Formats: sequence, C-alpha cells, structure tokens
Amino acid sequence: MKITLLGTGSAAGVPVWGCDCPACVAAGLDKRRRRRVTCATVEGSRGRLLIDGGVPDLAERLAPRDISALLVTHFHIDHVLGLFALRWSKASPIPAFAPPDLEGCADLFKHPGPFEFRRPPAFERFEIAGLGVTPVPLTHSKPTFGYCIDDGRARLAYLTDTKGLPADTAKFVAGFKPDLLVLDCSYPPREAPPRNHNDLPLAAECIAQVRPQRTLLVHISHELEAWLMEHPAMPPNSGLASDGETIDL
Amino acid sequence: MKITLLGTGSAAGVPVWGCDCPACVAAGLDKRRRRRVTCATVEGSRGRLLIDGGVPDLAERLAPRDISALLVTHFHIDHVLGLFALRWSKASPIPAFAPPDLEGCADLFKHPGPFEFRRPPAFERFEIAGLGVTPVPLTHSKPTFGYCIDDGRARLAYLTDTKGLPADTAKFVAGFKPDLLVLDCSYPPREAPPRNHNDLPLAAECIAQVRPQRTLLVHISHELEAWLMEHPAMPPNSGLASDGETIDL
Repeated sequence: MKITLLGTGSAAGVPVWGCDCPACVAAGLDKRRRRRVTCATVEGSRGRLLIDGGVPDLAERLAPRDISALLVTHFHIDHVLGLFALRWSKASPIPAFAPPDLEGCADLFKHPGPFEFRRPPAFERFEIAGLGVTPVPLTHSKPTFGYCIDDGRARLAYLTDTKGLPADTAKFVAGFKPDLLVLDCSYPPREAPPRNHNDLPLAAECIAQVRPQRTLLVHISHELEAWLMEHPAMPPNSGLASDGETIDL
Repeated sequence: MKITLLGTGSAAGVPVWGCDCPACVAAGLDKRRRRRVTCATVEGSRGRLLIDGGVPDLAERLAPRDISALLVTHFHIDHVLGLFALRWSKASPIPAFAPPDLEGCADLFKHPGPFEFRRPPAFERFEIAGLGVTPVPLTHSKPTFGYCIDDGRARLAYLTDTKGLPADTAKFVAGFKPDLLVLDCSYPPREAPPRNHNDLPLAAECIAQVRPQRTLLVHISHELEAWLMEHPAMPPNSGLASDGETIDL
C-alpha cells in the first residue's frame, strides 16, 4: 500500500493569501514549503483510492480510470473543491463513500457527475480496489469520517478533520494497530481549546490513545508552522507531512 | 480600460476530464487551446475589478491590494470557486457586488473573509476604482447580473451566464453602445433551445439586439469548439475569446 499526500495544509493553505508571517514568507520563497489543502491517494495492488478532492488540479494528475473509488471525509469546501470540475466527465461511475451528510456542498449532490455517492455504516469494513476500508466517525463541525485502510499486511488510519477522537473511534483505531496515522493538527497549542480541529496537545493526546507506529500531521495552518519555527517540539515518532510526500507501507 | 480574460470556458472547461472528442484532444496537446472557467479582470486608471473568481490560482496571480472590487455575476460554483481559498486573508475589506441571491454558494456568505458583499440595484450606475459600473439582469438558473463598465471613454458589456437577454437589459445595453461585448455562447446550435445558456443562434440574436462594435464569446464548451472545427461560422465582428487574452479599449 502506498499513500501520496497531494496536500497537507489547512483550508487556507500556506502561504495564506496576503499574509506576511514567517511561515507564509518562507513558503512564498520556497515552493517545497507550500501546503495545499489536505487530500491524498492510497494505492493498493488492484487500484487507487482518492481521499477527499480539495486540490484544484485533479484532472491534470489523474484520469478517470486512475480512481477506483473516492472516500470523502466531509463536505467542507476545502475537502471537495477539486471534484466540481470533474463532474462533466462521461466516465464510468466512480463509487464515492461519504459520511451521513444529506446537505453535501453547493450542488455536488444535484450534479454528481461520475461520482456515485454512498453512505457506508460506521465501523463496518468493506472492500474496494483490493483494500479494506472501515469508516470511523470523527468530531468536527459537519458529519465526518476518518478511514482505516488495510491491505491484509499494512494498516493506515487517516483521521482528519477532527478535534480529539470520539471514545469508540479511539478504541477502534487503537485495536486496528495502524502502521501509519495521518492526523489533523491544525494549530499550535491554544489557551482556549480549538473548536473543530486538533491543536498540538490534542494531537498528542490522539496519538497516545491510538499508539501508531508512526504519525504524520496534516491540515497544517500557517500559525502552527510559524509556532514550530520557534518551538521545534513534536510528539514521539511524529512529524509534519509535506505536499507530494509518498509513504510505502 | 483593459480587460484580461483569465478563463473563457464553460463549467467543465476544455479539455473535459476524460473526454476524447476532437476539441478536448486538441486542447490536451496544445495548452493554448485550453479553457479554464470564465472570469476576467478589468483595469481602469485607478484600480482593478475582478469579475467572478472561478479559476483556482487567483492567490498566485493577484495580491489583495491588486483587487479594488469584486463583481460577481452569480453564485454557481464555477464562478466563485477560486474565492474560497482567499477568505483567510487579513487584508483590508474588498467590496464585492453581487446579484440579489441570498443563498450564495456553500458557506461563502458565512465566511466571506475580506469580501464585503453588497447587492446593488439593477440599472443603477455606481463608481468604483475610477470606473462606472451598471449591473444588468440576465436570464439564468440563478439570479445573475451582467455588468456594463465604462471609463468615460470606452464601454464594455460583460454578459454571462445568460440565455438570451431580458427585454429591458437588451434595450439598456443597446443604448450603452458597447465597444466590446463579452457574451455567453456555451453551445453549438441546438435543436431544442438550451435552458440556461446561449447557443450560437441565441448569441447571434443578442449581438443583433445590442449592436456592439465587437464581440468576444466566452463560457465556451467543448461541444461548441468541436462543432466549430467543422462549421467555421461566426456572427459578424465576433470571435471566440482565448484564455489570457487582453483587450485594450
């Protein structure tokens, strides 16, 4: 199983438009430090899953036949923005698994194009493209699923966007024993706990609950990046993901 | 006054994802034939207007200070998609003029960032960035404004998305005597009239009503482009616009 992080940033990305904080200035000077919105592909031996579709250049990166299925974490615009331009294809249907959110985003459900939206039950494993996929509920401002993905050998837990973890999800993911955890860590430590995302202490708490082999933090904001320039402190066996990073599991 | 067409395509753009029609194949081979979604900037002597924001790379093309005001034609996603990533800026407020649509698109009104949405009355000229702007109602599936823009010397009428023109709009724009008409022409001639956009005969009818010096057709679909490869027939003094094209008026 191979995961490729197409983007690793928060909704605003890095650099933020018009921002002159140290993180945004650094990302403006060095393209490798830029962060587009968080989304990923996961390749198994028999196909490729696209997890969310927020980056706008999906059409240039992937042909319809390159996507065996879509997994949507939730319907905030930064997680589905790039799907709108793909809706006009006469391609074969692409199964699209999503949390129980009847509203969706803009007119995506009215004009879904090749995407056939389905609402799989939480905690029930299904197989697609030779991979096992188990949706797990997260804690966010819209109905949101994380996904535990396995190929019979390696195990990936992809948990964003979330603030902490619901107790049954934390228990399930700990039992899943992920080799890699991809986790929301939007903010540096905040005095008042953030509302819909992890800050660094909350992310550390999720990691302690789940005990993965390794963690990559995603949904990274410019505030977190600027804070880390002065406080290079990370939870054990964890690091910030980078745009374009590929991990073989 | 200078208009720059950032995009000239329909919602699907050209090439359409996964399409192998002659127009899409040609655009796949030659970047100059690609069409992104229709939007534009208009520069006057004292500032720049952005008309719609559907292209996703606005942050890379324009700094906050480069946009004096935003004119939204309507809130279909292909006309506002690129605005979502700009909402996180702490830039000074940017006045944003829009038709009377209380729904908007996704959560753009809930989190508008620097955009200060206003709903100007139709047919009433206002001044911004040294340009005169008159909103004119169009005929589309959402409340939609075209915009007549003048700098005291040259006159531009930007009319998309629309199917034909409401009688009072046709009369107003004819009296405005535009030097340049930028006009919706989404489709080749259709047996059944299209529902929400011009096909080529309807565009010709609009041109005959308005009598501009010159017309550039926008919101172009791959169907129109493929049809024109075999039927190179255009209304008088008109042509297809191209992405990146700049016209000095």
